[in-house]
Amino acid sequence: MNNKSNNSRMVDYFSKFIENISKPKDWKLFATLFAGKMLGLAAVVAAMIILPGLITGSEAHAADVYTAHETAVINSVWTLVAAALVFGMQAGFVMLEAGFARKRETVNILVECTLDTAICGVSFWAIGYAFMFGAGNGFIGQQYFFLQDVPATYGTTGVAILAHWIFQFAFADTASTITSGAMIGRTSFRGDIIYSVFVTAFIYPIIGHWAWGPDGFLALMGTPGHFLPTLGQPFRDFAGSTVVHTIGGMVSLAGAIVLGPRIGRIFLRDDKERGGLPAAHSLPLATIGAFLLWFGWYGFNPGSTLSAMDYEGIGRVAANTTLAACTGSLAAMFCALWIGPFKGKFDTGFALNGMLAGLVAITCPCYWVSPFGAVLIGLVAGILVFAGVYLLEFFRIDDPVGAVPVHGLNGIWGTLSLGLFASGQFGATGPLGADNTAPVRGLFYGGGFDVLKAQAIGSFTITFATLAVSLLVMYGVSKLPYPFKLRVEPEGETGPGGLDVFEHGAEAYTD
Amino acid sequence: MNNKSNNSRMVDYFSKFIENISKPKDWKLFATLFAGKMLGLAAVVAAMIILPGLITGSEAHAADVYTAHETAVINSVWTLVAAALVFGMQAGFVMLEAGFARKRETVNILVECTLDTAICGVSFWAIGYAFMFGAGNGFIGQQYFFLQDVPATYGTTGVAILAHWIFQFAFADTASTITSGAMIGRTSFRGDIIYSVFVTAFIYPIIGHWAWGPDGFLALMGTPGHFLPTLGQPFRDFAGSTVVHTIGGMVSLAGAIVLGPRIGRIFLRDDKERGGLPAAHSLPLATIGAFLLWFGWYGFNPGSTLSAMDYEGIGRVAANTTLAACTGSLAAMFCALWIGPFKGKFDTGFALNGMLAGLVAITCPCYWVSPFGAVLIGLVAGILVFAGVYLLEFFRIDDPVGAVPVHGLNGIWGTLSLGLFASGQFGATGPLGADNTAPVRGLFYGGGFDVLKAQAIGSFTITFATLAVSLLVMYGVSKLPYPFKLRVEPEGETGPGGLDVFEHGAEAYTD
Amino acid sequence: MNNKSNNSRMVDYFSKFIENISKPKDWKLFATLFAGKMLGLAAVVAAMIILPGLITGSEAHAADVYTAHETAVINSVWTLVAAALVFGMQAGFVMLEAGFARKRETVNILVECTLDTAICGVSFWAIGYAFMFGAGNGFIGQQYFFLQDVPATYGTTGVAILAHWIFQFAFADTASTITSGAMIGRTSFRGDIIYSVFVTAFIYPIIGHWAWGPDGFLALMGTPGHFLPTLGQPFRDFAGSTVVHTIGGMVSLAGAIVLGPRIGRIFLRDDKERGGLPAAHSLPLATIGAFLLWFGWYGFNPGSTLSAMDYEGIGRVAANTTLAACTGSLAAMFCALWIGPFKGKFDTGFALNGMLAGLVAITCPCYWVSPFGAVLIGLVAGILVFAGVYLLEFFRIDDPVGAVPVHGLNGIWGTLSLGLFASGQFGATGPLGADNTAPVRGLFYGGGFDVLKAQAIGSFTITFATLAVSLLVMYGVSKLPYPFKLRVEPEGETGPGGLDVFEHGAEAYTD
Repeated sequence: MNNKSNNSRMVDYFSKFIENISKPKDWKLFATLFAGKMLGLAAVVAAMIILPGLITGSEAHAADVYTAHETAVINSVWTLVAAALVFGMQAGFVMLEAGFARKRETVNILVECTLDTAICGVSFWAIGYAFMFGAGNGFIGQQYFFLQDVPATYGTTGVAILAHWIFQFAFADTASTITSGAMIGRTSFRGDIIYSVFVTAFIYPIIGHWAWGPDGFLALMGTPGHFLPTLGQPFRDFAGSTVVHTIGGMVSLAGAIVLGPRIGRIFLRDDKERGGLPAAHSLPLATIGAFLLWFGWYGFNPGSTLSAMDYEGIGRVAANTTLAACTGSLAAMFCALWIGPFKGKFDTGFALNGMLAGLVAITCPCYWVSPFGAVLIGLVAGILVFAGVYLLEFFRIDDPVGAVPVHGLNGIWGTLSLGLFASGQFGATGPLGADNTAPVRGLFYGGGFDVLKAQAIGSFTITFATLAVSLLVMYGVSKLPYPFKLRVEPEGETGPGGLDVFEHGAEAYTD
Repeated sequence: MNNKSNNSRMVDYFSKFIENISKPKDWKLFATLFAGKMLGLAAVVAAMIILPGLITGSEAHAADVYTAHETAVINSVWTLVAAALVFGMQAGFVMLEAGFARKRETVNILVECTLDTAICGVSFWAIGYAFMFGAGNGFIGQQYFFLQDVPATYGTTGVAILAHWIFQFAFADTASTITSGAMIGRTSFRGDIIYSVFVTAFIYPIIGHWAWGPDGFLALMGTPGHFLPTLGQPFRDFAGSTVVHTIGGMVSLAGAIVLGPRIGRIFLRDDKERGGLPAAHSLPLATIGAFLLWFGWYGFNPGSTLSAMDYEGIGRVAANTTLAACTGSLAAMFCALWIGPFKGKFDTGFALNGMLAGLVAITCPCYWVSPFGAVLIGLVAGILVFAGVYLLEFFRIDDPVGAVPVHGLNGIWGTLSLGLFASGQFGATGPLGADNTAPVRGLFYGGGFDVLKAQAIGSFTITFATLAVSLLVMYGVSKLPYPFKLRVEPEGETGPGGLDVFEHGAEAYTD
Repeated sequence: MNNKSNNSRMVDYFSKFIENISKPKDWKLFATLFAGKMLGLAAVVAAMIILPGLITGSEAHAADVYTAHETAVINSVWTLVAAALVFGMQAGFVMLEAGFARKRETVNILVECTLDTAICGVSFWAIGYAFMFGAGNGFIGQQYFFLQDVPATYGTTGVAILAHWIFQFAFADTASTITSGAMIGRTSFRGDIIYSVFVTAFIYPIIGHWAWGPDGFLALMGTPGHFLPTLGQPFRDFAGSTVVHTIGGMVSLAGAIVLGPRIGRIFLRDDKERGGLPAAHSLPLATIGAFLLWFGWYGFNPGSTLSAMDYEGIGRVAANTTLAACTGSLAAMFCALWIGPFKGKFDTGFALNGMLAGLVAITCPCYWVSPFGAVLIGLVAGILVFAGVYLLEFFRIDDPVGAVPVHGLNGIWGTLSLGLFASGQFGATGPLGADNTAPVRGLFYGGGFDVLKAQAIGSFTITFATLAVSLLVMYGVSKLPYPFKLRVEPEGETGPGGLDVFEHGAEAYTD
């Protein structure tokens, strides 16, 4: 643009110049007086034209006009492919949750995941995206309701706005699906619909705005004129250890607390013979689901750049994601083999939940840590998920799939781990509101406590806010009259055919 | 690098040159004799060189030479990734059909889908692609048999021709897999092979040529010198509501009519106690299959641009696809909850078939409607699939997976919906033969009836042609001698182990 | 190129010009005589500078500076998406192996595949990638241990090095998963861990280095100064028929030989009534797994270009992959229908293993053959897998999933087939160390025996080396003391709950 107008200004210059030199009758005088000057001028003009043309002209052109389109194309394709992979995680979640559940509550999970996705799509179209990604104030966004008046592209990456919407819808859907994890087997379907609307339309997008909104107060934290300016560090959550996983895990925990355990669930501290983790009805389903989740994570984390331009970055993110999943799985499996109450066995559940714990933990720091850091972060995640599962057993909280240790606990660990392992080599990118391109350096790499402080503030703020609001919502729904109250009638749990026949009139498998 | 230093050397040279020529004292003589003429000449030459160079040269260059390769690369990658996603839908179809079937006919579906895919690949290589995408006349293509003498790229998008072939193979395979949906449980395997060859080698590609061939009569409809020139509108089917889904659904319907219902199938109007939809043998399989289909649809619809250059367009297509799936699922599930014969239950089958109905319906109009339009199109699709399932019950047509309401009926609805909801903001793109870059505007957006008329003509032509030809083929195969006739011997249905042991010597599950 | 020589011509011109203008003493005479000439010359010089600058300058610029980044971006995205698809094959392998297994050994497969993947990630990070892709000597790589001191991008494609790592990790994981195929149902879990570490940390990467390392002796074979210089042909394995599949299949064969058959496995030659292939416990799982593998193969083969720049090439690779899968499936299924011991039935196992056999066979030659060649290569692969399965039956080797015929045998066939079917139209690309851009022409296309010889040398070298080393490793592990020895205790096989309860304390399915 700028370049073009420079060009046309030059053209004007030339026309006048040619007019001048073709009119004068008295060439002798003109030549005597002006020829040298003119030649010098011509040479200078020529140099002005030629030099920028050769040295910066075509580059400026490429950068301003041509590349802008190319970049938008490549980044939109990248974001859409990543969005498809993230959406594909729904198949993985359905399999994982159904596989870890008892047979009598399997259909309930299938329909619940389907309906949650549908509700999430509609509410994220109507108000969710507006609350989360619209500009407003530090606490809530106020633009783009019903996707009206959206700009053509999102932010500075050139990603088509509806490609960004679909990527973020898939994220919201992930958070929404996680919420049901610890509530399996005793939630009434109407109660589920009610709290799901709260989560996808209000809790997730509004709290998410704090960290990822263009003017979220955690995103702008540490910036002059905003929250905690002297800290000098924003809250960073690259792909959502906190925003997606901690929020999902905390809603799930609130539900499990308010609901109480399933009828007949025996905890280990009450009965060492028959207690312990409930039997998964189909380990093949659960295992394949976990692998599909890992597959989809290659969209979740690398796609969160919203840009393919930093190709080294997306490669690093994908490699770190891989390594944390590997060490998380190994750590949890060997904890169960060596020190668990069922030691001596290679346990499927811990192999899978360790893998997922590593994936959840690396989701926040994946861009800023080295492969070695990812190996250690995954290792700790695997140990934490093992401890978390038995901590819930101890507190008699019934979490059939381990959603709280996997997503809640490791969402927190992953978020904090950035403050420890950020290698100081890489600046910011991704869906962060703040301008934080300076390299991020954690405690173990000589960066002191500043990043860790910012991460702790962000993580704890969101963790407690989500837990508090969710407890309120769940408690409220639990007090609604039948059939809308949160917990299903006892015959729904204990009757023949279980929750599936009671709520859905069907069994998962027939002959 | 090298270039730059050359440039700077040139700059040094120039400075010296200018120093030299601006110093000489005796310019008078020189100027008197030559200066004017030479300066004029120099200025003209410079202008001739500089002006086109700066204004159009480098831009044209980028567009003609450089971008052509880049565009081809990006579009081929986009098309190949989309093709992979569409092919991945086969896994989804296998799961959906097997899950909705009875256990005794499950292996039959598995082998049938595998063989259909294999037959489709070979026949689409040999003649299918030629009939469909070769130039010929309005009714059939006549180039590219056995992929011989194909050009390097397809059309104007720069997509490598074999990338286009594989994308279109995956579409043909989808249509082919749909055809088996309503024929589950009583079709002989040899009969299945025979009619499948007809469908993938002749019915789908030849009828598809009408809408998507370079000179198809529906694609060129409304163009001067072609069919119905005064209409001024071609038939538009962005990603195949009609071409893939209606064709697949109509062949399926023809098969179900000619075959009759499975032995022992009880219809609701005959027995209100025991009648109704047949029991699905594995709802987890069906649900995961539906999610994988939705996942693959992100290749099916956005990939149908065959180009990533219109990045806003592919974002819009993907977002519309999402929203229609969500509202379709909600609408069908709440119909079943509130007004169905089994009301009061949240039904898995309708949750899934509503989702698929929304996806089928949005497949035609996805490029030209707004997100709000997509929400409404999906809503109607969900209601239609509910009505369609019970309409088939009423007519005593046995369609175990709901292929006719999902693909047949909603293929028609989606195609017509463009004539109602096209927002008038977007022109054409995608695999359309006609040159129709003018914005498409439907009835509800002030565009009158013209687009609706064109859609109705195209949809009804293809619907009736497919149904008529398919009834003929199915009837013909049903009259072949044993073992090639369409319906399996009664002992194949009623014997121990069912169709699976009779045709395949195996049961789906063993201990 | 052109630009460079233009530039140097300009430099010469200028030197002469400056020589001239800096020498003359009598400027008056000079002006009188030469000014016209000089001005004309100046105009010509200016034109020479401006024209290339505008017409070819920006191209050189684009090629040198701009495209390098763009190419790296597109190729990294392409490689990462392909890597995700290849990783997704793990879900397919888990399903295929679990589905073909008996119910009592299913959990073992699930945990084994999970652990193998985790071990592979860690060992490929620590030493595997270094051995395989680091420079060193012809036999082993010696750079990049723990991914330290890696360059920013891999080779000349501009792919981010960690994107290359993850793509190659997914390949190593594939090879590692294949190894367990023929060892199902009687391998102790600790023994499995031990041999898996050998395979992923040493056998696969070191032998793989020979064919794909930057200085591997098979990759450089036929090059002056290297192994067999007079042959004039390197060993070519585009996407790993040999490197991934033959290595995986041969390790699997060594394990099956050392282990012996499962207790209770009856071979056909011993008992025609009850013998034959063991019952698969879930054919739906196996079928869906096979389709997911085919889906992932669209990353495996086209992604092996590591570059999207040759867009016709990636289209051709994907189309050839499709066609070989189709004809492989048809050939194996009709062999079983017409000539097998269970003839008259459409067999699921052969439909799926034929498909996979075609995919394995085309993996090596996919870049260099025509679609017609792919059709024939797949056809032969389907016949070979049928023969191979019954050959193992004859030798009383128990291979529950057919890993040896599918991956071992067809890996060899596919590698040799390049020497027969290479069409002579395409040069080299892909992860090949040698500079072999000359078109590759096989025997049937008039290229004589040279390519076939090179393929045979490479295939047989790797086949025998892998088999020999694997037999040693397996034999060594089989002699370890309990509980580390390779074969599980008899009660692990015959006890209630089978291997699953014995090793993992869980059954695959519960009520």
